Amino acid sequence: MSTGLERFSINQMTVKQLSLPELVDACVQLGVPGVGLWREPVQSYGVEATAKLVRDAGLTVTTLCRGGFFTAIDPAEREQALADNRRAIDEAAALGTDTLVLVSGGLPAGSRDLHGARERIADALAELGPYAEEHGVRLAIEPLHPMYASDRCVVSTLAQALDLAERFPAHQVGVTVDTYHIWWDDQAPAQIARAGAGGRIHTFQLADWTTPLPEGVLTGRGQIGDGAIDMREWKGYVEAAGYTGPIEVELFNEELWARDGREVLAETAERFVTHVAG
Amino acid sequence: MSTGLERFSINQMTVKQLSLPELVDACVQLGVPGVGLWREPVQSYGVEATAKLVRDAGLTVTTLCRGGFFTAIDPAEREQALADNRRAIDEAAALGTDTLVLVSGGLPAGSRDLHGARERIADALAELGPYAEEHGVRLAIEPLHPMYASDRCVVSTLAQALDLAERFPAHQVGVTVDTYHIWWDDQAPAQIARAGAGGRIHTFQLADWTTPLPEGVLTGRGQIGDGAIDMREWKGYVEAAGYTGPIEVELFNEELWARDGREVLAETAERFVTHVAG
Repeated sequence: MSTGLERFSINQMTVKQLSLPELVDACVQLGVPGVGLWREPVQSYGVEATAKLVRDAGLTVTTLCRGGFFTAIDPAEREQALADNRRAIDEAAALGTDTLVLVSGGLPAGSRDLHGARERIADALAELGPYAEEHGVRLAIEPLHPMYASDRCVVSTLAQALDLAERFPAHQVGVTVDTYHIWWDDQAPAQIARAGAGGRIHTFQLADWTTPLPEGVLTGRGQIGDGAIDMREWKGYVEAAGYTGPIEVELFNEELWARDGREVLAETAERFVTHVAG
Repeated sequence: MSTGLERFSINQMTVKQLSLPELVDACVQLGVPGVGLWREPVQSYGVEATAKLVRDAGLTVTTLCRGGFFTAIDPAEREQALADNRRAIDEAAALGTDTLVLVSGGLPAGSRDLHGARERIADALAELGPYAEEHGVRLAIEPLHPMYASDRCVVSTLAQALDLAERFPAHQVGVTVDTYHIWWDDQAPAQIARAGAGGRIHTFQLADWTTPLPEGVLTGRGQIGDGAIDMREWKGYVEAAGYTGPIEVELFNEELWARDGREVLAETAERFVTHVAG
């Protein structure tokens, strides 16, 4: 019998108040089959220890978040970023996930050159793509909402992400399709089709769009069903493009973080069944 | 001798702490030739009284802000919006400006249908375009940054604005090109060329992009030169597209509003000369 949770994956950040053992235990209790992990808590717990924990529980690690931050101009900073991304690829491989999500980076201090920053991302991908392939990991460029263009990610649309990704083989570089970042874009459905045709939808993530946005606009990702996004519509686009993989719910939300993590996970699973599954 | 201010227009909202007589007096003192006005303060002062005030001072009213809010579904609300926009057109004509800026409206409560909302905007424009033409006023659809897509304006890109505008004659409906809303968009330069070729750049407005964004993201428009936007680059795009008209600086910024309005106007004029003119 279907639980409706077969494709559900909980991104660790959604319930960051849970320790890794608590998260894994809650997933097992609730029948959640997948988790998207973040590097910092994984490093704190230990990469090998985390790998064993999730493996023993029978969970799938759907993604590791996140690599990227490729837009520095200074050569030493650039080398440092590349080295850190090679470590992120190693960690992804050790955790048994095939997908490393990339947040590409914003404008360096004082720069107004979006185009130049985007080209430096391409340079970094050229170096990291083959290394990722050797480790069985695909890089997934995440276009971030245009409100993050200056300080987090100069890649603002799926079209831009694909323009970058398509310079490389699909098994090296693809994209992250995240409803929160692209829901406003009337070109996104066609770009999802383009991504699917090229085998480049490496992960599909969900968050809802709610207002008012909080100061800094980082922690306003809404619980599924609370906002303006028709989740089934977007699931339909990725499925029509051939994507049948896990669907991750990734929320950054102060109100959710202030609550009991197991309760939030249970609520999120329930919202997934209501608004996404089937 | 050029002052560098020949094309400068101060949008009233930038220095909303100034009364209309104070604003007009400050413009005259500083050699600012144009003002963009807002309906609410104009109505408070009186439309005819405002028209006389600016006319006697020799100022050009570059735009009136703003009409729009066309996305309601309820017929009574829609009729009310149309009536209000006809009044806005009357006011624009009375003030002697040829341009009414339109903020199209967000999603109605509970709706997730961006496409339907955009179609309702087209329906409203079909009714208002001829009325505007009769009064010598052009409607200027303003695409707002995608962070406003749910609650203020479902038109998020210049391409979308032009897709709407081009259903109507250019002397009825064009677009507002505002750096704050489009600077992140790598398609915007080509869309500016499209708008210019069609005679649809009805106004050009500036604000800079600064972070962190404030809660609600309405009052974070940065002073020219303080942020990520290369103003001369965007001026170059509109000029290459044939636009030689006024350039309005429109800032919503709590810090600027807390300061002396004349001082802010002087600073803004100085920033214009440094970062835009020439």
